[in-house]
Amino acid sequence: MCGEWHIRKKHFLERLEKDLKIGRLDKDIYGLLKTINSIEYYYTTSSCSGRIQVYASKIPGRKFEIKTIGKWHRPISLDELLEVLKDCPYEDIWLAVLPPILHVVARNVEKANRLLHLAREAGFKHSGILSVKNERVIMELTSSERIETPLRMRGVWIFSDENLLELIRRANELLLVTKRKIRKFEELLKSLC
Amino acid sequence: MCGEWHIRKKHFLERLEKDLKIGRLDKDIYGLLKTINSIEYYYTTSSCSGRIQVYASKIPGRKFEIKTIGKWHRPISLDELLEVLKDCPYEDIWLAVLPPILHVVARNVEKANRLLHLAREAGFKHSGILSVKNERVIMELTSSERIETPLRMRGVWIFSDENLLELIRRANELLLVTKRKIRKFEELLKSLC
Repeated sequence: MCGEWHIRKKHFLERLEKDLKIGRLDKDIYGLLKTINSIEYYYTTSSCSGRIQVYASKIPGRKFEIKTIGKWHRPISLDELLEVLKDCPYEDIWLAVLPPILHVVARNVEKANRLLHLAREAGFKHSGILSVKNERVIMELTSSERIETPLRMRGVWIFSDENLLELIRRANELLLVTKRKIRKFEELLKSLC
Repeated sequence: MCGEWHIRKKHFLERLEKDLKIGRLDKDIYGLLKTINSIEYYYTTSSCSGRIQVYASKIPGRKFEIKTIGKWHRPISLDELLEVLKDCPYEDIWLAVLPPILHVVARNVEKANRLLHLAREAGFKHSGILSVKNERVIMELTSSERIETPLRMRGVWIFSDENLLELIRRANELLLVTKRKIRKFEELLKSLC
């Protein structure tokens, strides 16, 4: 069983380095992932460092039906947003700000509880255990701040340019609030190691 | 330890009935709570059946800093929204649609896993275990559909009346999508009991 744990951890560590090389990994979160993976009782399986996303959909939440129009893991400018919206054929368009999310595997429930405690202290208030198996515990660590606002409904744009600029300011602010939690989590973990 | 479990469960069942009597409980979710509590391995400690909420804040997510302006656990009309916004002194106002959320205590990890599985099947995709203690496992069951949109920023209203009406239509639709999951969860549980 111990062998199986190490084989799985090795697999995910290798995938992480591969994702980093091909540019599929958000750099903002790499330090935190490295720190978690340096502890023998944990490994990370997937993550997102938080993002601003523009998508076509009538209402939010239909994960497999939405059409992504733009996605950034950093603050954006009005011009960048207008660029992806230009000539956009969709009648219904939404903008979302989504907080960082990490999936972590822990060796057992005790170790999972310990990481949950730290994650919450860092502001990842919406963290929990997704499933408990004999040899591993799968966790999701995230926070709950969100924006999910329509930009266009039934072909009608909602925001004036001035209001859109203000929306982007707040979207960027919220994104940075959640990204600061990544650094805090990393620092808390390091202070304990 | 068994005695402690029963004492706690009795306490929360009594509080539930008291909350129902004084109108503090969302009726939409009472059937589901009753069904969960009828199973000896579980009891519910708190819940919300999903809601539309209007609040004053610069950005979302500051749970303890926002000022609630209106809150409904059911679809709303344009007039109802305009009524709470009338003479509203705040410069920054947001509207949120929040999915149902339940906190449930399970007897042990195995029983928690079983309920998590059912909850996800019913569409409560964002469900997990918050903490594992010796004699009980605390769970949060919820889904991830959200709207979180500014209605007013820096004193400027964002939506025309026509667009606001369309926003309410979609907010109501999303609320009902999430509320249907309550019924589905209850049915799944009953079919197993």
